[in-house]
Amino acid sequence: MLTLAQAQAILATALSHAEKSGFKPLAIAVLDARGAQKVFAAQDGTSLKRGEIALGKAHGSVAMGLGSRALHKMAQERPYFIEAATHAVGGSLVPVPGGVLIRDTNNMLLGAIGISGDTSDNDEAAAVAGIIAAGLRADTGA
Amino acid sequence: MLTLAQAQAILATALSHAEKSGFKPLAIAVLDARGAQKVFAAQDGTSLKRGEIALGKAHGSVAMGLGSRALHKMAQERPYFIEAATHAVGGSLVPVPGGVLIRDTNNMLLGAIGISGDTSDNDEAAAVAGIIAAGLRADTGA
Amino acid sequence: MLTLAQAQAILATALSHAEKSGFKPLAIAVLDARGAQKVFAAQDGTSLKRGEIALGKAHGSVAMGLGSRALHKMAQERPYFIEAATHAVGGSLVPVPGGVLIRDTNNMLLGAIGISGDTSDNDEAAAVAGIIAAGLRADTGA
Amino acid sequence: MLTLAQAQAILATALSHAEKSGFKPLAIAVLDARGAQKVFAAQDGTSLKRGEIALGKAHGSVAMGLGSRALHKMAQERPYFIEAATHAVGGSLVPVPGGVLIRDTNNMLLGAIGISGDTSDNDEAAAVAGIIAAGLRADTGA
Repeated sequence: MLTLAQAQAILATALSHAEKSGFKPLAIAVLDARGAQKVFAAQDGTSLKRGEIALGKAHGSVAMGLGSRALHKMAQERPYFIEAATHAVGGSLVPVPGGVLIRDTNNMLLGAIGISGDTSDNDEAAAVAGIIAAGLRADTGA
Repeated sequence: MLTLAQAQAILATALSHAEKSGFKPLAIAVLDARGAQKVFAAQDGTSLKRGEIALGKAHGSVAMGLGSRALHKMAQERPYFIEAATHAVGGSLVPVPGGVLIRDTNNMLLGAIGISGDTSDNDEAAAVAGIIAAGLRADTGA
Repeated sequence: MLTLAQAQAILATALSHAEKSGFKPLAIAVLDARGAQKVFAAQDGTSLKRGEIALGKAHGSVAMGLGSRALHKMAQERPYFIEAATHAVGGSLVPVPGGVLIRDTNNMLLGAIGISGDTSDNDEAAAVAGIIAAGLRADTGA
Repeated sequence: MLTLAQAQAILATALSHAEKSGFKPLAIAVLDARGAQKVFAAQDGTSLKRGEIALGKAHGSVAMGLGSRALHKMAQERPYFIEAATHAVGGSLVPVPGGVLIRDTNNMLLGAIGISGDTSDNDEAAAVAGIIAAGLRADTGA
């Protein structure tokens, strides 16, 4: 089970990575393996529903068991499947990079982080930085 | 009307087909002709919402009266129709193979099975194996 | 994590308990600790949405971390809270007995079973019988 | 506009208040004046949908412009109004204490915090402690 301390460590590094890289304001959501929200933060200046995009990257990843970079590829190759999956999982699935599975060092799934606000690649880089800083494994779906 | 005994027979063979074939963990849903769930099972290791994908294959099939292989063809040729139909039926319709109509030997519709977890072709093969083992007819939409 | 073998054992005993007790047709849903469906069965003769009532008992229990007998008491004493919680958790919460938490022998939450079809007390008795037969602990919320 | 720094300060004190008071595990959600999530944290051991209850307290407060203690009184006196309002605002409104409006020293609305996990009174006490520690005004609806 992902602990609050682990989730806070991931979040803190993701935020500092974004700040020192000069990213645009981010929303950052961390879910546990049940898909339940563990921590969330929105930087000042994020748009009204930016958090829902971040949540959709994280939730889509946990729902399908794939980092959202893999969902991105599927959306390009088989858009009808990702559209259907989005409906089937209840609407919260954003198939672009920035949703990263969090695994422990035994490769067990602990949850996922979703970030939105800058480019998808930068969003993902902040997510990966956070996971690694917490001593865990990042699975982007690449 | 699909009986519990028939649905259990279908499910048992679908599970054993998957195990002996070395498939990845599957979610398997069997609905009756009303679209009501009759039996369901998720193997150990399925992702959080894998069951909803399986249910979407089965529900889409019963909803439209077509095996999901036919829905797959429609999704490729007329994506706007499948998108609209997905909304119209309430969101649970996954147009890829693995949703198979269950018919009796007089061709009467008894329900549908939906399987998700391995390739769509393998999902469908497990579904067909289950239906045949129960002495019923499988209609994949091919 | 609740295994498929455990869930099947719970289900099999719940069904046989119902049959030997002469209960009316039941729908039985077993969810894991993530709220994901693990197994489900509807006996012959259940009404169209009986399964959704069973699912609502199980989901409400996992969602709130309480056997549905406790939710029943809350619904009688503070109906506005249970109404609000039902909306907040997405609509699937049925606050009458028959939703029972499944715990292992260390009291760790593994999931929940929800049964509907006979009286709430009989529904709950079948659920408890199933959990005990699987060597696990039943938490009815009493 | 509620800043991330303010929201983090509120959250940190609410968490430490809960820990030093020996409260049961809490979910804590802070929304800004637009109803957008600003920060969130779930302590270890919270049930699957505890976060949705916390969000419902905060969202109900911002939605109606009233601390949830006032909504609680309305739920007891005019339940039909709170039920209708819950539907009207989209389902996320939990009318029990623990949703507290956050105002600045000029009484301008900055957002709301919602806490769930212990008794409603304790949930509210943690919320108020957090707001005061951040140099802001707490409006519980009392």
